[in-house]
Amino acid sequence: MNEFEIAPFKLTRGAFYILDQTKLPESEEYLQIKSKEDIYDAISKLKVRGAPAIGVAAAYGIWVATEEIDVDNFPDFIAAFLKIKDYIGESRPTAVNLLWALERMENKLSGIGNEMNFLNETKFSKVRIRERLFEEAEKIRMEDEAACYAMGEHGLTLLKPGMGILTHCNAGTIATSKYGTCLAPVYLGTVRKYDFKVFADETRPLLQGARLTAWELQKAGIDVTLICDNMASIVMKNGWIDAVVVGCDRLAANGDGANKIGTSGVAILAKEYGIPFYMYVPTSTIDLLTPTGSDIKIEERDGEEITKMWYEKPMAPEGVKTYNPAFDITDAEYITAVITEKGIVYPPYDVNLKKLFEDEK
Amino acid sequence: MNEFEIAPFKLTRGAFYILDQTKLPESEEYLQIKSKEDIYDAISKLKVRGAPAIGVAAAYGIWVATEEIDVDNFPDFIAAFLKIKDYIGESRPTAVNLLWALERMENKLSGIGNEMNFLNETKFSKVRIRERLFEEAEKIRMEDEAACYAMGEHGLTLLKPGMGILTHCNAGTIATSKYGTCLAPVYLGTVRKYDFKVFADETRPLLQGARLTAWELQKAGIDVTLICDNMASIVMKNGWIDAVVVGCDRLAANGDGANKIGTSGVAILAKEYGIPFYMYVPTSTIDLLTPTGSDIKIEERDGEEITKMWYEKPMAPEGVKTYNPAFDITDAEYITAVITEKGIVYPPYDVNLKKLFEDEK
Repeated sequence: MNEFEIAPFKLTRGAFYILDQTKLPESEEYLQIKSKEDIYDAISKLKVRGAPAIGVAAAYGIWVATEEIDVDNFPDFIAAFLKIKDYIGESRPTAVNLLWALERMENKLSGIGNEMNFLNETKFSKVRIRERLFEEAEKIRMEDEAACYAMGEHGLTLLKPGMGILTHCNAGTIATSKYGTCLAPVYLGTVRKYDFKVFADETRPLLQGARLTAWELQKAGIDVTLICDNMASIVMKNGWIDAVVVGCDRLAANGDGANKIGTSGVAILAKEYGIPFYMYVPTSTIDLLTPTGSDIKIEERDGEEITKMWYEKPMAPEGVKTYNPAFDITDAEYITAVITEKGIVYPPYDVNLKKLFEDEK
Repeated sequence: MNEFEIAPFKLTRGAFYILDQTKLPESEEYLQIKSKEDIYDAISKLKVRGAPAIGVAAAYGIWVATEEIDVDNFPDFIAAFLKIKDYIGESRPTAVNLLWALERMENKLSGIGNEMNFLNETKFSKVRIRERLFEEAEKIRMEDEAACYAMGEHGLTLLKPGMGILTHCNAGTIATSKYGTCLAPVYLGTVRKYDFKVFADETRPLLQGARLTAWELQKAGIDVTLICDNMASIVMKNGWIDAVVVGCDRLAANGDGANKIGTSGVAILAKEYGIPFYMYVPTSTIDLLTPTGSDIKIEERDGEEITKMWYEKPMAPEGVKTYNPAFDITDAEYITAVITEKGIVYPPYDVNLKKLFEDEK
């Protein structure tokens, strides 16, 4: 996982490092994760963020943390593992991928136990168990990377060389194991000399577009222009945008998609200007149990993110009322296509999203 | 002009003060203007901003500056006046109202000269000349105030008590002599207990919505909620917005309007959500010589306003490319009505805007 210059994590001689995204773009620091406290801290303080990246970080993190387990038998190892898992699982309780990855690591451990029983192995080897846990973390990472790569390949069929592409927030390399979700076609296209011109919305209030997307695209040598969120309309009107690509936090069964605040506005502008709007959604993010976008609860965050964060001096009057939703819902009607690792899904989404999962049966 | 708590300028015992808007919302400081250098500095450094307010400030400013003229006859007074006028006129060369107000003061001075000739007055009195210049500055201010009041009355007929109103940038009291343009109906409605709920877009990159609009509405005791620009879509979708009100920097003959960057996006969202979009345009801002919005040149500003201004630490990668237009064009098709001091203008604008001026003939 090191051949790529930018990665949200690194493995070097058995040590696991996380890129501290809170320090970007000022400095590029990789923190070594040495304990369960380290991984808890990294996830809870958003040093690693982006749903897929959080899952992968948690898997490696719990592998690292098992080093400190000092027992001489498998049942005690499991008991200690579960305590660590519960602890790490609290680091960001709303992150679905966090719990999903930790469950997978637990299932792997149970599997090792069953295998040991089957083979009638009685000798307890922490080293050997940890090797298998490491393999599982690697597998989770590689699956994520493969899914992003596949989304990139599918998405690239919708784009042409020289196109102007607008993106919102950060669904790029550092939000995943590699390639990103909606930025995957940009990276894959760049290798093929597609010479995209990318416009990155800064994405207030937390500025993921300015701090993260502009940073990672610039590092990759891709032509990126940073704009304020309220400039999306003029760049579209100027004729500079041929496609909009965004990620997704949860896609409802009817195709309504929750994503970073501001996404729905960009989608409406794209429709008005006749520009296709593509949402990149790994199938793990499609939630068929949620009928529509109106069934998705929108997290509201602290208003100080708007009024104080980043600023040297107050940039709003003291005590002013704010409204600070973290996400908004983009109605299915504004989404030209949903790009998953299994392929591209077109409307009607209520019918076609189900088919993605029926094929599995 | 002192009965209103908030004003972009104050007159106290013959001294002229300007509210330093660059210090808002942190502190509310009125600067005394004592010389031509003071007024130049206040206008060029945006301590006073907003087209109408700049014009009024320039009129009082040149009145103040004439105090330093030390001559004993009228021709020398005019010569000194013209030098001061040219100097102040350079403080913000693109501001139409600045030059317009200075011309008006010059015309007043010429008028005084003609009057003196007519009356065969030979005694030169600087005090008396300056009294007349002061009267003209007062007249300019009162005309602006009356125009804003009239826009407020006309605009209020389009609003109902309890409505949610979204605004972008600052076209309020401190951008004018009083009342503002698009905020005039909000102030007039508040006096009549309309209990509006106002949502203020923060308006990146210079944050006029956060620093100025939220500040002046909060001071006036009006229910105001500050949001990031990219939250306009969700507040509309939530059903919280019944009308959008914005100002205008220049309205073309076909009804296309240039205003603060981001205005066109808000207008498109309003149309999509079925919300009326009202542009407040003093007739002095209507430019029938400009056929359409595409004939208006858009000023591009320094990208550091996006990447560095306000921030304690870099919030975008060093050297990132930016695009920072100061304005955008809202196409006439998205403007439900244009509110002027002479009344409300509806489409077709190419026909109806002309009528505003024909009535004058």
